[in-house]
Amino acid sequence: MVMLKNRDIISILDFTKEEISYVLDLSKKMEEQSHTDLLKGKILANLFFEPSTRTRLSFETAMKRLGGDVIGFDDPGKTSTVKGESLKDSVKIVEGYCDIIVLRHFLEGASRLTADTVNVPVINAGDGASQHPTQTFLDLYTIKNTKGGLEGLKVGFLGDLKYGRTAHSLAYALTHFNAEMFFISPPSLRIPKDYIDQLKSRGITYHEVDSLFEIRSNLDILYCTRIQKERFADPVEYEKVRGIYKLSSAVLDDLKLGNDLKILHPLPRVEEMDESLDSTDYAAYFQQAHSGVPVREALLAAVLGVLQ
Amino acid sequence: MVMLKNRDIISILDFTKEEISYVLDLSKKMEEQSHTDLLKGKILANLFFEPSTRTRLSFETAMKRLGGDVIGFDDPGKTSTVKGESLKDSVKIVEGYCDIIVLRHFLEGASRLTADTVNVPVINAGDGASQHPTQTFLDLYTIKNTKGGLEGLKVGFLGDLKYGRTAHSLAYALTHFNAEMFFISPPSLRIPKDYIDQLKSRGITYHEVDSLFEIRSNLDILYCTRIQKERFADPVEYEKVRGIYKLSSAVLDDLKLGNDLKILHPLPRVEEMDESLDSTDYAAYFQQAHSGVPVREALLAAVLGVLQ
Amino acid sequence: MVMLKNRDIISILDFTKEEISYVLDLSKKMEEQSHTDLLKGKILANLFFEPSTRTRLSFETAMKRLGGDVIGFDDPGKTSTVKGESLKDSVKIVEGYCDIIVLRHFLEGASRLTADTVNVPVINAGDGASQHPTQTFLDLYTIKNTKGGLEGLKVGFLGDLKYGRTAHSLAYALTHFNAEMFFISPPSLRIPKDYIDQLKSRGITYHEVDSLFEIRSNLDILYCTRIQKERFADPVEYEKVRGIYKLSSAVLDDLKLGNDLKILHPLPRVEEMDESLDSTDYAAYFQQAHSGVPVREALLAAVLGVLQ
Repeated sequence: MVMLKNRDIISILDFTKEEISYVLDLSKKMEEQSHTDLLKGKILANLFFEPSTRTRLSFETAMKRLGGDVIGFDDPGKTSTVKGESLKDSVKIVEGYCDIIVLRHFLEGASRLTADTVNVPVINAGDGASQHPTQTFLDLYTIKNTKGGLEGLKVGFLGDLKYGRTAHSLAYALTHFNAEMFFISPPSLRIPKDYIDQLKSRGITYHEVDSLFEIRSNLDILYCTRIQKERFADPVEYEKVRGIYKLSSAVLDDLKLGNDLKILHPLPRVEEMDESLDSTDYAAYFQQAHSGVPVREALLAAVLGVLQ
Repeated sequence: MVMLKNRDIISILDFTKEEISYVLDLSKKMEEQSHTDLLKGKILANLFFEPSTRTRLSFETAMKRLGGDVIGFDDPGKTSTVKGESLKDSVKIVEGYCDIIVLRHFLEGASRLTADTVNVPVINAGDGASQHPTQTFLDLYTIKNTKGGLEGLKVGFLGDLKYGRTAHSLAYALTHFNAEMFFISPPSLRIPKDYIDQLKSRGITYHEVDSLFEIRSNLDILYCTRIQKERFADPVEYEKVRGIYKLSSAVLDDLKLGNDLKILHPLPRVEEMDESLDSTDYAAYFQQAHSGVPVREALLAAVLGVLQ
Repeated sequence: MVMLKNRDIISILDFTKEEISYVLDLSKKMEEQSHTDLLKGKILANLFFEPSTRTRLSFETAMKRLGGDVIGFDDPGKTSTVKGESLKDSVKIVEGYCDIIVLRHFLEGASRLTADTVNVPVINAGDGASQHPTQTFLDLYTIKNTKGGLEGLKVGFLGDLKYGRTAHSLAYALTHFNAEMFFISPPSLRIPKDYIDQLKSRGITYHEVDSLFEIRSNLDILYCTRIQKERFADPVEYEKVRGIYKLSSAVLDDLKLGNDLKILHPLPRVEEMDESLDSTDYAAYFQQAHSGVPVREALLAAVLGVLQ
């Protein structure tokens, strides 16, 4: 039996297939009915050492929809960090003010350190270029809802596969469900070798190509990512690849990836995906963003032990 | 019958006399009794792309006094806007997290665009130099409370009548109630011609003068505005008019505008209105500021369809 | 009988011994049982004109744990202050939005001014280098909890005793309870003469030394403070004293201050107190930080008149 009470949510790699399926089922229940007083009296501390509006707001909404409340900050410039306080001290103090901590930090490993330091459960809301597990849960939830299941799908990943942590985590999670994977990126932004090794060791069929036009198969899902300027040390390198993929309604019609294709994107998008797509049946990215609420409700309720 | 459920509140120009009166009556009810659980489980997203503490806080209080809750931000520097996200995308995502959006934006038309984009109701909390309808509702509410009614009042407008959106909107709204209007401003800050044309077409009696001392009539209301430095492209032009009007208790006694005069001001004030006025019977501006809560409660309850 | 309803909490000097004891007893009750709906419908305005994450968050948690709600800001740069509004005007407006104001301000006297201006109760959450009474209440609460009582304790104060307002206020409060005091600081950071005069006039036994090694007595409490760089006009003076005291587990064992010693610190710490102390029985500073919640719950409930 799956037990998530007091569990820290640090990386999608910590979750078994059974646990993932359990969270997705619970998310469905959260979406289907309201649970107004489930977390009454509970307090979540939203500690955002790096800004992230949509993640922060959807955690707030999830907590408040369940009757709980939220404290926190979204700007480390206003915390004791500027007086030289260590992260360990900061979270040790805040654990006395709350029942659960949601942490966003610019440093890889900050969430694991926090979980090792405090006695309340910790949810990683993104640490550096590393993990962002609740994003992966909501990606999986959206795929399951749009395709009717998760087993044996053909999934394309497009864009920055070198730095895109959401693509890495989703690819890993989909190894549980026997996906066939297509990685589409410029050579300079290929998925790192250790991820490929992981896929191989788990017997996953995969393909690496430069262009969507090289794909000769229908796809169930195309997972697009933004090419993130802020990850490039050299602006010349960024200029070489920015705008290399520009999806639009017209391009999609040319591509022949099948009528059942659903496009996901963690958002924000900049120029890689045209507004013309929004009104097509392909578009699932706003639905995906909205899934943040029921998925985070499910995780909060499970970790706080009020639902099993 | 007036029905405001799911109505967007974008401009006072969208409201009929009957609807305005309805909102003011509902505001009175909100002020007279508490409604602790009226909006329980509802979430308001306060999206402030431009800071405005008092508007933001009074919306928060209104929502929370009715048992609802609030998410949001007050600094666009911390949102995905800095990553290049469009306003349309931002609000399309946030609509999945809330039941109603309150938007403050530096660009004229941002609220209308938002209302056209999302399915939840939108309240404009100020867009650029354009509209700020909830301010006008609370101005009207204060006038009605202090004068016992709205019909046939003599209303003066003082200060920056060129850029002052609150004066423009209030003047427009008062055309429904057959006001006689007095516009007092330096020649360089006269009310724009299209507003005057509107008054004419609606048969409103009005006067334009340079100085309060030219007014030979008692006034019911004097609506003062701050001369806003930030609206002047040329600091020399600002220096010419700053401090041109300095109301004080002594000046008011000299003016002979009548003992029943009430002074309103959207605040903040800087040097145009002296503290000596605060303890006089003329002063209604703090009462006006406090009216923000019942008026916004009424609008939230009506738009969310829990009261009719 | 102690009556704190509608009382402003501005300085610990305003409180009698009986009132202090009453607040500490009430804090204990708040800690021992939850009071979920005690402040339902009440709104606290957290006005932080100077950032202070832990004070702000613990007030938020206290209010929300009692069923109340919170509005506010933590960055004066986003308020009407930047448009030139006076503090008096700002708080006069906000009092219409709330039932109680918690104010943090960089200017000494700001809280007293606010209390004199508004009709809702005001709690001082720190004004400049002056008063921070809720910190003193939680310091006392922690001392009482760790030592079983407050009467006749031997209390050391270490570090910056010239600028450290928390040390000044705590020393004052402990004069009610007949403490023997030891002030340990470099000569340039001695406790100001008027505080010493106060102790003398109240018949308190005290000692001033340069080093902890000069103390020949067991201590019940050692109250450490950070040497605050931001209080020094001259960086050379700061460099002379920074790091002059570095407590660690090893240093404590050398000192022979007794096994029952408890170390408090208002936090954040920087280099004056080593992590090696955290796991010793001496460490009471995290417990102290966590006491902020029940103590502030007690003050809010008492001032809002829902508990006596």
